[in-house]
Amino acid sequence: MSAVYFDKLIEQVRPQRPRKVAVAGAEDIVVLKAVAEAYHMHIAEPILCGNEQEIKKLAREHQIDISDFSIFDASLEQAAKTAVSLIKEGKADMLMKGLLQTSDLLRAVLDRENGLHSDKTSVLSHVSVAYSPILQRMMLLTDGAMVTYPDLKTKAKMIENAVKAARGLGIEKPRVAVLAPVEVVNSEMPATVDAALLAVMNRRGQIRNCIVDGPLAMDVALSEEAVRHKGIVSEVAGRADILLMHNIDVGNSVIKSFVIGGSCLLGGVIMGADAPVVLTSRSDSDQSKLYSIACAASICGN
Amino acid sequence: MSAVYFDKLIEQVRPQRPRKVAVAGAEDIVVLKAVAEAYHMHIAEPILCGNEQEIKKLAREHQIDISDFSIFDASLEQAAKTAVSLIKEGKADMLMKGLLQTSDLLRAVLDRENGLHSDKTSVLSHVSVAYSPILQRMMLLTDGAMVTYPDLKTKAKMIENAVKAARGLGIEKPRVAVLAPVEVVNSEMPATVDAALLAVMNRRGQIRNCIVDGPLAMDVALSEEAVRHKGIVSEVAGRADILLMHNIDVGNSVIKSFVIGGSCLLGGVIMGADAPVVLTSRSDSDQSKLYSIACAASICGN
Repeated sequence: MSAVYFDKLIEQVRPQRPRKVAVAGAEDIVVLKAVAEAYHMHIAEPILCGNEQEIKKLAREHQIDISDFSIFDASLEQAAKTAVSLIKEGKADMLMKGLLQTSDLLRAVLDRENGLHSDKTSVLSHVSVAYSPILQRMMLLTDGAMVTYPDLKTKAKMIENAVKAARGLGIEKPRVAVLAPVEVVNSEMPATVDAALLAVMNRRGQIRNCIVDGPLAMDVALSEEAVRHKGIVSEVAGRADILLMHNIDVGNSVIKSFVIGGSCLLGGVIMGADAPVVLTSRSDSDQSKLYSIACAASICGN
Repeated sequence: MSAVYFDKLIEQVRPQRPRKVAVAGAEDIVVLKAVAEAYHMHIAEPILCGNEQEIKKLAREHQIDISDFSIFDASLEQAAKTAVSLIKEGKADMLMKGLLQTSDLLRAVLDRENGLHSDKTSVLSHVSVAYSPILQRMMLLTDGAMVTYPDLKTKAKMIENAVKAARGLGIEKPRVAVLAPVEVVNSEMPATVDAALLAVMNRRGQIRNCIVDGPLAMDVALSEEAVRHKGIVSEVAGRADILLMHNIDVGNSVIKSFVIGGSCLLGGVIMGADAPVVLTSRSDSDQSKLYSIACAASICGN
């Protein structure tokens, strides 16, 4: 992706002002580079939690300027707790995973007393923010990474999380397509049944701030031409902002298909806690990492 | 897709000589155009089964030259049976759906006495032949259209069908990736369990003429870079020819993601009967229709 083009994309998801990001386990060169880049682009203000000596050593070795960043010295065991407490105290806006294990970070987030899961009815779910150069549009996909086989109630919560993310990214009333292999209700295809139920739940005010429709197949969700061809009447079809996928089998493969086979730029954020949580992976491209941070900053900032 | 580029693709899947395609319900302008084009490209020799008067009228109206094609006059009810019997008698090599319903065509194929399902242990499954301009490669995906929620035994049969298709397309020993969200066996993720079992079945000679590995996530199946990054050791990872997807929820969404979000050219054929069956849809692009016919002709011809 060309630099100019990428800059335009970042502009689309840029928060109104830089947001404070608490990095748990910041002694990680990939993460340090990403947050330093985000800082220089006025997207985020990093607060580094971790082994101070190690962080400074890494920054020196890789010539990363971290002189403007706050550092909270903490062991790897303590880093997640420290980062979480910064958010709890209102000193940071979002959380980011550094060197530690995802499970350790989430344990700190979900901690009953000191965690960030104050709304116990909420579900933690992963929302991918993909930009497709072929479709020339952004879409939010959930969930390819975290929730495995959600029931109807969990799916409703996942929509709420994705809607919150979409609104943070400036989509005031997102269109949610609940995906299935066909557009008709077929009692032998659970995805179609859940989709129809979620659509009605939306009409009855049980899922708010969005327009939910389903069952819709992927082509009908995204392509106006497919909608015309199949003669589907829907406020969502052809222009879905959010794609809710039946389970992790679908979500994981679809998201990776868009990235590998569709050159999509992908960011991702965990929603459902008191603050967005960014998990970038070592294998993410630098652009993808920055895109994730910018999306999360925009989500918690707007 | 540019014409020159498309010609190269067709060259890749061209049968050694034109194959005889029996069209059931040929009084369909979309199908007539497609088979006429295939004829002019020396890919197929159409045999038209259907209302002769209607077929000739349509051809005249749309200036399609069908003077070289055999026509078997038959009512719409009889057209499928006529086309099937042509294959049974060795007068045609493959079947193609015209105006009639898919279910009516398949009923004729599956007819116990006069059908094309002589190996009763085989399963009818749909194999998509996708060419990705981004990955610059062909891959076979199964099943996004026909088999819904296959058990282990059915999945093994589906692999056999896809392998037969791949070999027809010139891939002598196809690499089969059984997809799942992760690369480890997790008893709470049925896709990973089936994948591991299918891999072992392959090693024990229960699934032949191919190399099966799984569980593999989509990125690891297709991208050498992802393989290196995750440190997966596999003969299949990074270069899968066939992608077996857990069920129709995954298959349908993934295939449509590749087409809509990845500009893939898609052909498709039903395998498992005595001859390949082509079902092109009115919404397929002209290139896609021709690609389907060429793939099927190559599959039954080689």
